[in-house]
Amino acid sequence: MKYCPNCAGTLNLAVPDGDTLPRHVCPDCGMIHYQNPKIVAGCIPVWQDSVLLCRRAIAPRYGRWTLPAGFMENGETVAQAASRETVEEAEARVVDLEFYGLFNITHVNQVYIMFRGRLETPEFGAGAESLEARLVQEHEVPWDELAFPVIHRTLNLFFEDRRRGAYGSHMFDIKSIRQSG
Amino acid sequence: MKYCPNCAGTLNLAVPDGDTLPRHVCPDCGMIHYQNPKIVAGCIPVWQDSVLLCRRAIAPRYGRWTLPAGFMENGETVAQAASRETVEEAEARVVDLEFYGLFNITHVNQVYIMFRGRLETPEFGAGAESLEARLVQEHEVPWDELAFPVIHRTLNLFFEDRRRGAYGSHMFDIKSIRQSG
Repeated sequence: MKYCPNCAGTLNLAVPDGDTLPRHVCPDCGMIHYQNPKIVAGCIPVWQDSVLLCRRAIAPRYGRWTLPAGFMENGETVAQAASRETVEEAEARVVDLEFYGLFNITHVNQVYIMFRGRLETPEFGAGAESLEARLVQEHEVPWDELAFPVIHRTLNLFFEDRRRGAYGSHMFDIKSIRQSG
Repeated sequence: MKYCPNCAGTLNLAVPDGDTLPRHVCPDCGMIHYQNPKIVAGCIPVWQDSVLLCRRAIAPRYGRWTLPAGFMENGETVAQAASRETVEEAEARVVDLEFYGLFNITHVNQVYIMFRGRLETPEFGAGAESLEARLVQEHEVPWDELAFPVIHRTLNLFFEDRRRGAYGSHMFDIKSIRQSG
């Protein structure tokens, strides 16, 4: 961020009065431009004993498998965002969404909020950002070809919870691969 | 948002290729500037049978009572943000944070994420953004002088859960006062 979105002035990095962190401050109009984490809303779409995965047709992690998830938009709820992403990426409609987990990914300033959702019918397809979508049982999950650690963690928790017959509300921090070695 | 933070070009509102919503797009450098909801992280600080409230020393709702809560910063987890806000607004340290509720406030593009936290000692004070802080029992909550509907809802749920002896994970949409009449 170099220029003020309000007046095109050249921004400074400075700690505003009463604040504790450096912000992008405009010396011309005085506006302070905060930058905050973004929410990625996603879903585990469930049909009978399978879950719906999609294979990414976009960077990063082109060709890797993932759960439907994407940036939450202004004007929608987190659950609406998760449903919309499931339509967009897997051409599938989920109902009865239940909060499942919150995952902090601080090194990219993202908070993943994942839901469990039920497919009313086993209809799905490859959305514009997917190469394909597929219903998989636990033994069919391509664990080594998943796109992101948060997807690995979410699916792991889901199948663990299913085995013991109770779905919790989970909260975890996902460390970067570099940090955790 | 009028000017490009990257090159100071004059932004257009346009639907980018492959997108479905109008975005702020720079005709000069091509950058797309997304705007997304913000997370407000907060805490119900609990000491014995009381909760810690603070009275706002800032707009909006100057003089009204609230729970410690504020915008999550880059680089922190949601729980860290809730703890930090409790220090900043009520000069109190909470431990054993448990996820308590997620509240969508779509008309202001905010997602409140609230925790329950335990005060290790009944030490607290008025932070820079508070006129005072006070431990209150249920019958002492100033229900008509609370700052925001989301605070009212959170406290209501908390005392209900406490009466039945089980704290759930809650998810609600908070409608604007204008919309709900």
